[in-house]
Amino acid sequence: MSNNNTLDTLINRIRPPDTTAMDAARQRQDQLTKPRGSLGRLEALSIQLAGILMTSHPQITHKVIVTMAGDHGVVAEGVSAYPQEVTWQMVLNFLRGGAAINVLGRYVGARLVVVDMGVATDLPNHPALVNKKVAPGTANMTQGPAMSRAQAVQSLLNGAQVVEDEVTRGLDILAVGEMGIGNTTAAAAIACALTEYAPEQMVGRGTGVDDAGLARKVAAVRRALLVNRPNPTDGIDVLHKVGGFEIGGMAGAMLGAAAHGRPVMIDGLISTAAAMLAVTIAPQVRPYLIAAHRSQEPGHALMLNWLGLQPLLDLDMRLGEGTGAALGLNLAEAACKVLCEMATFAQAGVSDQEAKA
Amino acid sequence: MSNNNTLDTLINRIRPPDTTAMDAARQRQDQLTKPRGSLGRLEALSIQLAGILMTSHPQITHKVIVTMAGDHGVVAEGVSAYPQEVTWQMVLNFLRGGAAINVLGRYVGARLVVVDMGVATDLPNHPALVNKKVAPGTANMTQGPAMSRAQAVQSLLNGAQVVEDEVTRGLDILAVGEMGIGNTTAAAAIACALTEYAPEQMVGRGTGVDDAGLARKVAAVRRALLVNRPNPTDGIDVLHKVGGFEIGGMAGAMLGAAAHGRPVMIDGLISTAAAMLAVTIAPQVRPYLIAAHRSQEPGHALMLNWLGLQPLLDLDMRLGEGTGAALGLNLAEAACKVLCEMATFAQAGVSDQEAKA
Repeated sequence: MSNNNTLDTLINRIRPPDTTAMDAARQRQDQLTKPRGSLGRLEALSIQLAGILMTSHPQITHKVIVTMAGDHGVVAEGVSAYPQEVTWQMVLNFLRGGAAINVLGRYVGARLVVVDMGVATDLPNHPALVNKKVAPGTANMTQGPAMSRAQAVQSLLNGAQVVEDEVTRGLDILAVGEMGIGNTTAAAAIACALTEYAPEQMVGRGTGVDDAGLARKVAAVRRALLVNRPNPTDGIDVLHKVGGFEIGGMAGAMLGAAAHGRPVMIDGLISTAAAMLAVTIAPQVRPYLIAAHRSQEPGHALMLNWLGLQPLLDLDMRLGEGTGAALGLNLAEAACKVLCEMATFAQAGVSDQEAKA
Repeated sequence: MSNNNTLDTLINRIRPPDTTAMDAARQRQDQLTKPRGSLGRLEALSIQLAGILMTSHPQITHKVIVTMAGDHGVVAEGVSAYPQEVTWQMVLNFLRGGAAINVLGRYVGARLVVVDMGVATDLPNHPALVNKKVAPGTANMTQGPAMSRAQAVQSLLNGAQVVEDEVTRGLDILAVGEMGIGNTTAAAAIACALTEYAPEQMVGRGTGVDDAGLARKVAAVRRALLVNRPNPTDGIDVLHKVGGFEIGGMAGAMLGAAAHGRPVMIDGLISTAAAMLAVTIAPQVRPYLIAAHRSQEPGHALMLNWLGLQPLLDLDMRLGEGTGAALGLNLAEAACKVLCEMATFAQAGVSDQEAKA
């Protein structure tokens, strides 16, 4: 079977969430010992998770954070405050447990899976590193496509395969994150390609470029769009022309999670660009997505709005790696515990508002 | 020693946070393997906690949620959607472990301490219930003072004593919450007494009153202020005239925590009214306070703004009990873990932005 057929098969497996389970969860929320609706978005989140996991009593035990790394040819345009070598250095930091995503992943009790989707350097074999490298870094998208169309499809399938393997090990909810010097530039180009927004509105300072660096980022995105003319109705075309291997990997991971009936916690700017690609490729992925937080990057709010997602957290974070998504996992787990563990008015012998009226 | 002297002694023990520890924490944040400032408010929170706990490496192990209950004479004005009996029924629900605060407290690994500060009904002896009852419910504040001035001081001291006892058992951070039918009306009256806001701006639907109930709440607050004329520069006077025993207890708990150098996570509308009283009584409490979330109640944002606090979460919650504060404890713990456990650029061998420049 060709890769295109494999991708179609994956997409065709994605079913809508279970409305019967959602109705049952909603009814249960209204019987729990609290004023109706008083837990706000935790209640809505628990109902969404009930629909995805197809049960009125969703349990989140196995939390998995997949952090995907890749390099970007566009760094030649001077778009990042850090040198490209930081990508592989940070991957080694992940493997040694010293990065923010290690600390937060341990704290929330999640399993961290680090994936090489396309780092420019050869990485050592390591039991905690999954090798799904499509190629050693993308080409410079200001000169032509970032990758071939076949590589775009391959990155989606590689990402989906990572999730498939983790589902076998136990996965109740997926969080996605990334590492890749230059990838805020690729994310902004993807967002501009899929929306009406201009590069000036979508490009931010990423890891912290100065004004000159910001101007170079805007120019690079504008040139990449002009040179490549990505088709906004074809997510694979956009990934092929202005994407990145870790971005394709995350989009594929989302398709894979949805195909397996698992919710996806998205993180900041880059994983949200991946979500935009995933939804363009398969709109039925959308109800599986949860936005963990709103990044400090100005374009992120516009992207979340385009997706129709309201972020759970707004803590001025802009690190990536999956750090915001890790904190979001905690809220998802808390939402499920409230739904499953609270007593009802009848069980607790508490006078109900409606019963009295 | 008189109660007034005891209160003065407590207040005089409150020291400013340790700026040396804060500077050391800030410097360490800038050496960790992430772009400077990229963890946003988690970084600021870790620095605040370093100052309060007087160490560059603050650890949060013992988390304590104190949920205080009390009844309110103002319920005679028809200000609540629920009957007064729900206060003691919910206290029993807390003791049996079925309420939202039990579920969320367990989830975040906090010890829950339930306190009777002034429930109108006699409650059974129970190992998990602390009896600090000042009186069986306040008087109707629309007819005169809610409590005597002596009772106001007593409620502050009782609340501080609860925290004193918990510090002995181990307490690294305090979260406060409450239960008391009618207490959103008292909280709104306190907030109006201490600010320039009118009752129409501060009163919300609480547990869910209809339009007629909302009008009765506004009228009750207006009458209570007119009848009692609380002095906005005297927090004890405001508590005495339009407060509640659980509200005084929470304000006292905040004074006690600050006196012991412990941070306080405040919850929704009612505990924020208590924080306003605490800060009016002792302005040096303010740097010890952390706002967990912004409640759906419209007055809450105004109150947080008056306190100069920015909430960590905004999830449309309006339950009270300490449920928002419980989720905030998780973020405080995560902030400390990032500060203490992440590798530095030097340790990880990662190229630093500044080092390169």
